[in-house]
Amino acid sequence: MSEFNQPISGNDLARFSGPNTFMRLPAADSLEGLDVAVLGIPMDIGTSWRAGTRFGPKQIRAESAMIRPYNMATGAAPFDSLQIADIGDLAINTFSLADSLRIIRESYDAILAHPVIPVAMGGDHSITLPILRAIAARHGPVALVHVDAHADVNDEMFGERETHGTVFRRAREEGLIDPAKTYQIGIRGTGYAADDFTEAAGWGFQQFPAQNLWHRSLASLGAEIRRDIGTGPVYVTYDIDSLDPAYAPGTGTPEIGGLTTPQAMELIRALKGLNIVGCDLVEVSPPYDLSGNTALTGANLLYELICVLPGVTQR
Amino acid sequence: MSEFNQPISGNDLARFSGPNTFMRLPAADSLEGLDVAVLGIPMDIGTSWRAGTRFGPKQIRAESAMIRPYNMATGAAPFDSLQIADIGDLAINTFSLADSLRIIRESYDAILAHPVIPVAMGGDHSITLPILRAIAARHGPVALVHVDAHADVNDEMFGERETHGTVFRRAREEGLIDPAKTYQIGIRGTGYAADDFTEAAGWGFQQFPAQNLWHRSLASLGAEIRRDIGTGPVYVTYDIDSLDPAYAPGTGTPEIGGLTTPQAMELIRALKGLNIVGCDLVEVSPPYDLSGNTALTGANLLYELICVLPGVTQR
Amino acid sequence: MSEFNQPISGNDLARFSGPNTFMRLPAADSLEGLDVAVLGIPMDIGTSWRAGTRFGPKQIRAESAMIRPYNMATGAAPFDSLQIADIGDLAINTFSLADSLRIIRESYDAILAHPVIPVAMGGDHSITLPILRAIAARHGPVALVHVDAHADVNDEMFGERETHGTVFRRAREEGLIDPAKTYQIGIRGTGYAADDFTEAAGWGFQQFPAQNLWHRSLASLGAEIRRDIGTGPVYVTYDIDSLDPAYAPGTGTPEIGGLTTPQAMELIRALKGLNIVGCDLVEVSPPYDLSGNTALTGANLLYELICVLPGVTQR
Amino acid sequence: MSEFNQPISGNDLARFSGPNTFMRLPAADSLEGLDVAVLGIPMDIGTSWRAGTRFGPKQIRAESAMIRPYNMATGAAPFDSLQIADIGDLAINTFSLADSLRIIRESYDAILAHPVIPVAMGGDHSITLPILRAIAARHGPVALVHVDAHADVNDEMFGERETHGTVFRRAREEGLIDPAKTYQIGIRGTGYAADDFTEAAGWGFQQFPAQNLWHRSLASLGAEIRRDIGTGPVYVTYDIDSLDPAYAPGTGTPEIGGLTTPQAMELIRALKGLNIVGCDLVEVSPPYDLSGNTALTGANLLYELICVLPGVTQR
Amino acid sequence: MSEFNQPISGNDLARFSGPNTFMRLPAADSLEGLDVAVLGIPMDIGTSWRAGTRFGPKQIRAESAMIRPYNMATGAAPFDSLQIADIGDLAINTFSLADSLRIIRESYDAILAHPVIPVAMGGDHSITLPILRAIAARHGPVALVHVDAHADVNDEMFGERETHGTVFRRAREEGLIDPAKTYQIGIRGTGYAADDFTEAAGWGFQQFPAQNLWHRSLASLGAEIRRDIGTGPVYVTYDIDSLDPAYAPGTGTPEIGGLTTPQAMELIRALKGLNIVGCDLVEVSPPYDLSGNTALTGANLLYELICVLPGVTQR
Amino acid sequence: MSEFNQPISGNDLARFSGPNTFMRLPAADSLEGLDVAVLGIPMDIGTSWRAGTRFGPKQIRAESAMIRPYNMATGAAPFDSLQIADIGDLAINTFSLADSLRIIRESYDAILAHPVIPVAMGGDHSITLPILRAIAARHGPVALVHVDAHADVNDEMFGERETHGTVFRRAREEGLIDPAKTYQIGIRGTGYAADDFTEAAGWGFQQFPAQNLWHRSLASLGAEIRRDIGTGPVYVTYDIDSLDPAYAPGTGTPEIGGLTTPQAMELIRALKGLNIVGCDLVEVSPPYDLSGNTALTGANLLYELICVLPGVTQR
Repeated sequence: MSEFNQPISGNDLARFSGPNTFMRLPAADSLEGLDVAVLGIPMDIGTSWRAGTRFGPKQIRAESAMIRPYNMATGAAPFDSLQIADIGDLAINTFSLADSLRIIRESYDAILAHPVIPVAMGGDHSITLPILRAIAARHGPVALVHVDAHADVNDEMFGERETHGTVFRRAREEGLIDPAKTYQIGIRGTGYAADDFTEAAGWGFQQFPAQNLWHRSLASLGAEIRRDIGTGPVYVTYDIDSLDPAYAPGTGTPEIGGLTTPQAMELIRALKGLNIVGCDLVEVSPPYDLSGNTALTGANLLYELICVLPGVTQR
Repeated sequence: MSEFNQPISGNDLARFSGPNTFMRLPAADSLEGLDVAVLGIPMDIGTSWRAGTRFGPKQIRAESAMIRPYNMATGAAPFDSLQIADIGDLAINTFSLADSLRIIRESYDAILAHPVIPVAMGGDHSITLPILRAIAARHGPVALVHVDAHADVNDEMFGERETHGTVFRRAREEGLIDPAKTYQIGIRGTGYAADDFTEAAGWGFQQFPAQNLWHRSLASLGAEIRRDIGTGPVYVTYDIDSLDPAYAPGTGTPEIGGLTTPQAMELIRALKGLNIVGCDLVEVSPPYDLSGNTALTGANLLYELICVLPGVTQR
Repeated sequence: MSEFNQPISGNDLARFSGPNTFMRLPAADSLEGLDVAVLGIPMDIGTSWRAGTRFGPKQIRAESAMIRPYNMATGAAPFDSLQIADIGDLAINTFSLADSLRIIRESYDAILAHPVIPVAMGGDHSITLPILRAIAARHGPVALVHVDAHADVNDEMFGERETHGTVFRRAREEGLIDPAKTYQIGIRGTGYAADDFTEAAGWGFQQFPAQNLWHRSLASLGAEIRRDIGTGPVYVTYDIDSLDPAYAPGTGTPEIGGLTTPQAMELIRALKGLNIVGCDLVEVSPPYDLSGNTALTGANLLYELICVLPGVTQR
Repeated sequence: MSEFNQPISGNDLARFSGPNTFMRLPAADSLEGLDVAVLGIPMDIGTSWRAGTRFGPKQIRAESAMIRPYNMATGAAPFDSLQIADIGDLAINTFSLADSLRIIRESYDAILAHPVIPVAMGGDHSITLPILRAIAARHGPVALVHVDAHADVNDEMFGERETHGTVFRRAREEGLIDPAKTYQIGIRGTGYAADDFTEAAGWGFQQFPAQNLWHRSLASLGAEIRRDIGTGPVYVTYDIDSLDPAYAPGTGTPEIGGLTTPQAMELIRALKGLNIVGCDLVEVSPPYDLSGNTALTGANLLYELICVLPGVTQR
Repeated sequence: MSEFNQPISGNDLARFSGPNTFMRLPAADSLEGLDVAVLGIPMDIGTSWRAGTRFGPKQIRAESAMIRPYNMATGAAPFDSLQIADIGDLAINTFSLADSLRIIRESYDAILAHPVIPVAMGGDHSITLPILRAIAARHGPVALVHVDAHADVNDEMFGERETHGTVFRRAREEGLIDPAKTYQIGIRGTGYAADDFTEAAGWGFQQFPAQNLWHRSLASLGAEIRRDIGTGPVYVTYDIDSLDPAYAPGTGTPEIGGLTTPQAMELIRALKGLNIVGCDLVEVSPPYDLSGNTALTGANLLYELICVLPGVTQR
Repeated sequence: MSEFNQPISGNDLARFSGPNTFMRLPAADSLEGLDVAVLGIPMDIGTSWRAGTRFGPKQIRAESAMIRPYNMATGAAPFDSLQIADIGDLAINTFSLADSLRIIRESYDAILAHPVIPVAMGGDHSITLPILRAIAARHGPVALVHVDAHADVNDEMFGERETHGTVFRRAREEGLIDPAKTYQIGIRGTGYAADDFTEAAGWGFQQFPAQNLWHRSLASLGAEIRRDIGTGPVYVTYDIDSLDPAYAPGTGTPEIGGLTTPQAMELIRALKGLNIVGCDLVEVSPPYDLSGNTALTGANLLYELICVLPGVTQR
């Protein structure tokens, strides 16, 4: 156990103390020796309704102080298995979405020059496009597990082709993802055109609308996806608005009738065994999260994602 | 499509811009040519616990800006099918409940002189009594789908016979509704007397207490009600407090153990085919809705109600 | 009915008026003639993350004004059956946890010199240790129904052996509870060591982790526990953080993936018939409960607990 | 000292404990022997913009727990001098403003049958009209110190003659106050007509608009008013919205450019020596007072008013 | 009076009702016949710290419903003097700051093709640069009254030359303003370099740091500025963060030690007589304005600005 | 400039990014070479009313990200003059006030073994007693500038002699401070006994009650104190509740009628030249600071204190 970074224990230093890193892990300046790099991408200029996700990483880190190292439900022991650190925030340009996407791409290229799994805290969902560009450059087209209220397959918004609502159309156009192994889970709500969702199905995307998932466990869906994907590289992108606003009020474009946190945990836990090469958790918006519990949920889902990364042992 | 009013698109004008009408539909001064009239009844002087529903219509309209025209789950395309507009707020007398009920009655009489379906945003639940008076005057006694935490069948409150807690006793006494086709869904909580709920059952009201609905889909219940009602005129009154406070914290008299938004959507969607002649969504109280998500939920449920109005096509 | 204390009716005095006692019951200075004593233990110095539970009793009482005397779901009529009063708050020492625990113990000893069932409003969970000491001194080791997100079986926290996280290890060590009749329901989350939960199972504690309870009714679990316990004395301790943060955001150490209020009500209602000798509801933290609905939930769960006390008749 | 009621000391019982009476004074059922009766009038149905003052008395009492008995600035020792108790809330009819005003009048008539000074916690400002009716019936027309952002001299609002905006026109018409000894302090803002404020000046009202008071002490203004009034009976009505919203955000009709709390305290302290026969503090609206500090301010201003009542000694 | 647009009276329609236009004035589609056009520029992508000003216009309009037509302090009667309407929001591109600035410029060019005074509700302060470009194109270089906590004279931020912190350096470089008649009032706080403020003084800007204005009336400063400017065209840009956070908490980059609302009103009222050709009120951020009072303050300051526009008569 | 630690510039890394240290200064593990050590003491178990100050250091650091290095008003350039770092939080025992005070004392003894000025972020005011013990052990009895709403000279609270209300009685008894050079500024409110404040005056404490300071600059008071103290060692303890709740709502025991932030800045700036050997800023309570502006104020006052430390040059 002693060979890996450990979160500061709540019995050594009161949880409301200490550095504001993810789970109070050590901050790392270098990627050398890391298996997993947790990082923040504090940005909200890609959002179309409520802003505020620029404070997401800061607040997710703050709430993550309550998480202890062992996963009681699954036995996962990530900090007995992998070298994990918080490498801080990307220095985005808050005045330019286009420039920020460029910076994210270049930063990820640099990160992926090392054999490390990047785990990103958003930020709005537009961050996932440059991430996928770097991921595909490194790993080739990936399978994509995309949990979200929205399909994010618009072509343009106000004439812009790269925003939080166009990510996965671009990703497909650019060959960053394997459409037949793209799973969109939790999508729902209303659309601009009658075929808003069906078009993506035509590309091969496998869509699991929220209304088909209500009142039931997602363990079997997760297992099915895991089997379907097999052994290739996978990226997981988790939009907190996939959850119902009851569970995640603090987000920019909430949609009623969403998933529950038990479902979210079932789904993620079932992904154990996949070759996950990166993941993100996006759209936590602290100004709309007065209790802090949306950030807490985001922190816990990131922890659950880390628990299913390759190499994590279970006790 | 072009023949009907359309909501302003979020791709033409940023969602946080534009008029504060329901879904950013055109405001209409006249009822001429309208199939559906959305209106606000901003009132809270009929409430017995927390106030604030006077700001309900304003906040529901604000949050409705996020709704797009097509219902992805059902294919409903209300703005391809009907002429819908926001006709503004009724000019109630905020210092007198009795006078306000009179004003609502007279306003509805005027509205119903046109072949239009009124869709009301409350306001507290006391608005439904004068609405039902006008509805019954126009259509005769109606079937009533009443979704609520409370049966609202008190005889008096502080000696007053017309408040948000006495509506449906009055409606039955006055012959405004058909008791055998009155469905009370989601009722729960505590009562002043051991027979608080059973009395209404004696009148023929069909009651579906929340505890009988937990953990299951309401699609079949909705279908059953639809079959039971048949082809006669129906009024739907939706009290947001039918939902659990986790889903709708911003309301005046919350009761734990309520419905979920998936259940609410299942129920409403199952009503498609009924001859709905009017509906309302009441008891959204913005001062207690710090995230705005209760108003968002109210806006979406109103949208779902509009999607099942007679004449709405599905794609 | 007239022989017992009654809550002030909302039809006699507006709910936002009157004394801030539980359900607006009479305040009692003496325990003479009481069957049930509701009391507050306003304390938060045993908490490890967010504080604020010192205001729990005040806020629970405020929100309890909305509860009416009859339980519509079960027919329970506690105020037709038992003499119940609010005996106020214990005078804890807010600058010393150790001294406060001593005061609670001594106060409970004095209370239990009368044939009364104490129903406590916390305060943080550390209050339950001195309560159990007094309860065991009076009744011998008791069966324990413990609903919580956390097992609270740490050995020490910062070198302290008596905090809100060590209660049930101490209770077992001191022989206050019957380990084989100790039921921990709703536990979940993360642990400091891989065996954090299994150790307590080794003592005989029956553990029902939240993830085994998702998506289903708890009525049968409650019935099973009731049968398993039989006729001996039982203490029920209800930590509001057993609920998911969607249902109870206002608490000090929230954990995602928790129970729902329907489950909480099913569980409690199934306990009817047990020989409950005391109960508490802890960890409501008003500063984090901006809507007041966590306190409302706490008040209602206390009411449900009172409805299953020995001697309560059903109508 | 021992002959009079004392607030519970914060060193005997933690401030967040104990009864929710004003300053944790004893609750009194009877007026016998009281010099001062503090009471709540929880009402908001006379308000024209934001509601919520129905919770004013409850919240003012809660925040008053922090006030200690001695006034360090003036040496006033009200609890060494007078018998003071909290007599609870009036049982208003929350569904009828007119009926509530009748109830307030009758309740005050009953109170004033005793030689007691009533100190009211509102509620909205409409409560002051029936209070003045009872006061004038007992004492004849009184001098009036009216601190407020609004002159409240409208003739009608929505056709109603008795609301929170018409009080002092009615009071003058009915001869309840001496117009030449009516002082309106802090009035400001905008009007419906160019002569909105000047008409009242024509009746003899002495008006001190806020903009004439900015940046200076109000001690001399208070002293001037005290001298001008002389020895006759005086009623003081204090609308919390006289304060700037920076100092009192939690109110229904805030107006920028108001008084400061230092000015409020200077003004009240300068009134020492007047024959005050009653007073009120109105328009605290807890739903808009998220920090609780507006209620805290209201509680302190009520305390300052009590400190200048006839018979209070200074140390 | 009848010849001009009037706000809807609070006695005709309850203030919480009606259209969400500024002061409930008529919405205008055309600029024909208008003397003053109130408009929203809902944008926050130019902000460097907290976002949220995209909701500024909506919230300012909502709170403006409380303002009545006549200015009691100054006698100003803007709606007896000028034709004023709310022309809605500019259709900015929320994904591109540069494109939005272009849109604002072009929109203002179109507006200024009419003899109308534009009164803008921001939005972050970056909107003022394109506004000044259009203003200068129409009127030549203008005098500038700039009330703000920040001088906004950075050269670049993250390499961008046009953000909310660089506006007035650009305006001077482009010759849009007369440096010798540029007045920066309320500036304070900390700087990146020792000469952050002095450089602008070197250009001729007249700076009035907040610390020189504490504890005193700004009426004379306003009068001085008015005399100094004389008869040429003037633009007034009012950043709500010029106010102390006590008075305006809901803003993106608050700085302690600011102005008070009395000072703000004194300053604006003293500008009467200037040839104001346009003005704006920026940086109201509703997500940080939980009470709504910052928006209320913004609405009132806009009203005060309208009261000093050329042509407004006083009664 | 380059020889000293610099805050991360807001133009290099967006302010909502980066480490959560004070002003985004480097975190230091060692005291070697430091002139000033900023540290957090996250504790609230010494508070008597509202809790929450345990989150004070975290929130003060978060808000401090907005402060730039140069003081525009005074020209102070602390980061050109001194080596300053954030040394993190003390590891207090959150379950024991007594043990925490011991830990603070020992930690300060260790800190003061180096020639460094400790600048503490509280935490409740009870932290100042062990700090003064260490300070006096190092420097002998110190002059004390104590800005606070409360004199904190109680003898006991609930039998405890060391709480946030007894600090300065203890400090005097133990000879930690020079009573004749102890200045209590801003004290006000109510007392338990008529001589609550006068007793401390009898010890030689120089008291400046808030009511004597209203409406005026504190620059001259600060200058007077500076002259009176002369050259000996001085400790400055700043309780944020010295400010009026309008300026600092987020604190545990707010008292109306307090200082303004301009006054606070005037006072601190006037202390330049004193031999300050340590200082603290206490009682910021984030759960009651919904806008974050109290923490912002605390951060700025700490910055102003740093600007007047010995050795800071002015430009």
